[in-house]
Amino acid sequence: MSDSPEYRERKAFFDRVLTVYGRKPVLEVLQNPQLHCHALHLAQSNREQGLVRDIRALAESRDIPVNTHSREALARISRNGRQDQGVAVDVLCPAFRQFTDALPDLPPRARLLALDGITNPQNLGMIIRSAAAGEIDGILYARGGNAALGPLVIKASAGTLYRAPLLLCDSLPGALRLCRERQMEVCALAADATQTLFEFNPDGGCVYVLGNETEGVSPGALKEATRGLAIPMRNGVESLNVAVTASLIAYAGLMRPT
Amino acid sequence: MSDSPEYRERKAFFDRVLTVYGRKPVLEVLQNPQLHCHALHLAQSNREQGLVRDIRALAESRDIPVNTHSREALARISRNGRQDQGVAVDVLCPAFRQFTDALPDLPPRARLLALDGITNPQNLGMIIRSAAAGEIDGILYARGGNAALGPLVIKASAGTLYRAPLLLCDSLPGALRLCRERQMEVCALAADATQTLFEFNPDGGCVYVLGNETEGVSPGALKEATRGLAIPMRNGVESLNVAVTASLIAYAGLMRPT
Repeated sequence: MSDSPEYRERKAFFDRVLTVYGRKPVLEVLQNPQLHCHALHLAQSNREQGLVRDIRALAESRDIPVNTHSREALARISRNGRQDQGVAVDVLCPAFRQFTDALPDLPPRARLLALDGITNPQNLGMIIRSAAAGEIDGILYARGGNAALGPLVIKASAGTLYRAPLLLCDSLPGALRLCRERQMEVCALAADATQTLFEFNPDGGCVYVLGNETEGVSPGALKEATRGLAIPMRNGVESLNVAVTASLIAYAGLMRPT
Repeated sequence: MSDSPEYRERKAFFDRVLTVYGRKPVLEVLQNPQLHCHALHLAQSNREQGLVRDIRALAESRDIPVNTHSREALARISRNGRQDQGVAVDVLCPAFRQFTDALPDLPPRARLLALDGITNPQNLGMIIRSAAAGEIDGILYARGGNAALGPLVIKASAGTLYRAPLLLCDSLPGALRLCRERQMEVCALAADATQTLFEFNPDGGCVYVLGNETEGVSPGALKEATRGLAIPMRNGVESLNVAVTASLIAYAGLMRPT
């Protein structure tokens, strides 16, 4: 049953759903005609006035189903009852997939970013923005250990999160192991690595692991790494912002003459 | 008189002074043995306890002169009476210079960044951090129009502001005109430019003008530009974060094989 085509299709659909919460973020989603919304969710406790009334009217004018829920049920849908303000909307993100589903379809020279403890929402949003703009085929993201895909991330991504190739996984080390089994290089970005990002031009697939700004790449991810890569720095600068590092990775290929 | 060697030496000294304010930022400066501090300034109204007592003791142990001032005089020194918390310290930044003094000393293939309306302190700090780490010989900065060099900028720069090659100018268009007169290229970063940053490899000196995130490069700076440069973007992404753009410029040369 759990392997039936209907089940898999349904699951693949829900993997692509990002639930956006908060009155202003939800209004902005509904005002964007490029975003496909699956359903609007409202708490029964909302008063039908102001922004809530605008939100409902906009959803109805776009033929988006409107569901009402108890406050508790809505908190389960938004996953953030403290900040959802009684409002959430399911947005379809066409490029979101489960990593294990996407793996067989990756191009032979795939370039992936792996997020290993990106807890600052601003940095996470900027990474997504640069990865979407540059040459990155997928962003490996586990919910545990990274910032949640909430309003701060969406804002810092300048709305690019909705079209970013986010590859969802349960455990980053597990996903990296699958990459290695497919003969992909797993590169841990680390200031003390001897080889630089710019010296390394992989022939096959490659995953670049970005660690936490303070802690660096975690031991679990490091265990799966096939090499370390550094970015050269002058003037005694000890590290770059992690979103800057991600952007240099996303554009390193474009900067090389073909 | 104003052109005497003593006057010019004194002026060049004060061009290199960055006044840091706020109790925690000042304490952090004093705790960093790599930073050369010229003087500590305290408001007479401070109570001599807690952080203020620690700050004074630390300055005295480092033989840094301690001056006390009226609240108003201290606000003039800190340039931010609302947030200085009665404490300021003058830090010597060896790579800070007046742009007009630095211009004759620039290398023939100098790479400069020009900041044209970077009002977000986080972005300004990140730009400085990447410029200091990468291949940038100077950062053209006018106080007017950009975020002030305050605690948020220092934090976002990860402390690299103190050693960054900041070139101070009164008016950015005026400084860009001087660059043009020295046959430097003045490149305005703009999403709609036909040439890309990666296609352009200047033989001589070059200034890259970074505009405001919302407004882009200002008309006054645009008038001095000799060309426009874009960064290619996929997936319909319309722009990159300005600090990311700065970082790609700072590393574009390093990414090219020599």
